[in-house]
Amino acid sequence: MSQVLSAEIEQRVRDSFARQGFMKKLGIEFRSISKGACELAVAFDESMTQQHGFFHAGVTTTLADNAAGYAAYSVMPEDSTVLTTEFKMNLLAPARGPELIARAEVIKPGRTLVVVRADVFSVGDGVEAHVATMLATEMCLMNKDDGPAH
Amino acid sequence: MSQVLSAEIEQRVRDSFARQGFMKKLGIEFRSISKGACELAVAFDESMTQQHGFFHAGVTTTLADNAAGYAAYSVMPEDSTVLTTEFKMNLLAPARGPELIARAEVIKPGRTLVVVRADVFSVGDGVEAHVATMLATEMCLMNKDDGPAH
Amino acid sequence: MSQVLSAEIEQRVRDSFARQGFMKKLGIEFRSISKGACELAVAFDESMTQQHGFFHAGVTTTLADNAAGYAAYSVMPEDSTVLTTEFKMNLLAPARGPELIARAEVIKPGRTLVVVRADVFSVGDGVEAHVATMLATEMCLMNKDDGPAH
Amino acid sequence: MSQVLSAEIEQRVRDSFARQGFMKKLGIEFRSISKGACELAVAFDESMTQQHGFFHAGVTTTLADNAAGYAAYSVMPEDSTVLTTEFKMNLLAPARGPELIARAEVIKPGRTLVVVRADVFSVGDGVEAHVATMLATEMCLMNKDDGPAH
Repeated sequence: MSQVLSAEIEQRVRDSFARQGFMKKLGIEFRSISKGACELAVAFDESMTQQHGFFHAGVTTTLADNAAGYAAYSVMPEDSTVLTTEFKMNLLAPARGPELIARAEVIKPGRTLVVVRADVFSVGDGVEAHVATMLATEMCLMNKDDGPAH
Repeated sequence: MSQVLSAEIEQRVRDSFARQGFMKKLGIEFRSISKGACELAVAFDESMTQQHGFFHAGVTTTLADNAAGYAAYSVMPEDSTVLTTEFKMNLLAPARGPELIARAEVIKPGRTLVVVRADVFSVGDGVEAHVATMLATEMCLMNKDDGPAH
Repeated sequence: MSQVLSAEIEQRVRDSFARQGFMKKLGIEFRSISKGACELAVAFDESMTQQHGFFHAGVTTTLADNAAGYAAYSVMPEDSTVLTTEFKMNLLAPARGPELIARAEVIKPGRTLVVVRADVFSVGDGVEAHVATMLATEMCLMNKDDGPAH
Repeated sequence: MSQVLSAEIEQRVRDSFARQGFMKKLGIEFRSISKGACELAVAFDESMTQQHGFFHAGVTTTLADNAAGYAAYSVMPEDSTVLTTEFKMNLLAPARGPELIARAEVIKPGRTLVVVRADVFSVGDGVEAHVATMLATEMCLMNKDDGPAH
């Protein structure tokens, strides 16, 4: 269902992403957003690892969860904010570097709940390996600011 | 099912935790391990946030996933390593600071698959709020080193 | 969080259960309902089996899903109906007869979404074995009739 | 990844399906199997309903779970049997009659664990509506008979 977004909605998503301290800490890069789809990426670093030296499942999940959230947000009305209510993650293969990419796509754009699938790929030498798949439910909260709670 | 662990298994779990670069990066603290149970904690910081200023779901999930993995590892035989195969996370309430605690407990210690529940609480002024619950499947890999792949 | 329900809410739940043709087909028995908790049971029969002769996962899931839905419905306001939006099921052990019991408990009674845990036990000779655990999200639809759509 | 199966593996899957009493009870029809993919269908009947008169989530889940299980079984070696270890189901829209179809596809054919996606569609007047999506983990048990336990 991906289509080009209006400049306003694209800006709204990018502003929200920029407010997330955790994106900066992990160096997650915003790659693209369109109607119902989002792509994020992150580079490998020793500080991202689990005990076997691969990307930690927490990194893989953060990447997929955020891609899913913004794919959902791109189909939500103005004056709303997005909240992840739940997700399931299947880890399919070791998440190696040098880069991890998450691609999320809305599969059901409901009024209150938006269901999204996100897939994570490790990329090296131009080859992609499918390392994880997520199924997530995102909630639209109307008349709520997307910024910090006061 | 929690009981005291042997010193060897406790050490094996703590060594594995120490090898995870991502634990250092997030400042996650190893609180306790017993047979089938594990507790981890992390302190709030601006660099851990999502767009509304709460802990990012990626932090909450990392904490729960790691507690679940080590709770499972505590019931696995020697000469094995642990791998998260999948989990589902329900985010129940905003994860506020100053501290987040994850408590994991094995609910089915199978030979190959170990099913674990992990709950995450935000702690402030001595009061705990239940902010997330995870249901995870951990896999036991026999005759595999828990250290880096070569 | 279980407490006694008002007679009206108990009746609303029992009426809803009675409208489900699938409960009759499987012979599922309504055992009890209280505020935030529900118990259902079903007897073994050859017509309920998977290929190894145990209860089919579809039976176990139907039982857990319905117990979860009614536990959630018991905490929802009048003039509402309940809808399962998603669940995850972990099958822990073979579900043997002669009887299967599901016990559901609300873990987060939100205004729109109610998160519920349901556990399924096989019962024989007075001994219970834990055969499955479900984590479910139920949605409250306001000003909607719980009866058939027209 | 779908390809034609050998006659032996197709027969193994069909024999396993035929041993499931629950398939007969629900009138579930075996539509097709190929390497890594399976399609099942079921017709609407009043005895299949939830309280609003749609297919019960238990029917939708049974259909998806079985399609997922046999898609997985089609990629497993001889002398093995298949077991569903867990799944997550998202219910996307009311499951109306007259017919429900589940299509499952293996997304990761591991040696021990096989991850499968299954989608359920309601079909009427030649139009398909996407009503549910499942993400499941199937386990391969080696040197185990697929028939009844003794």
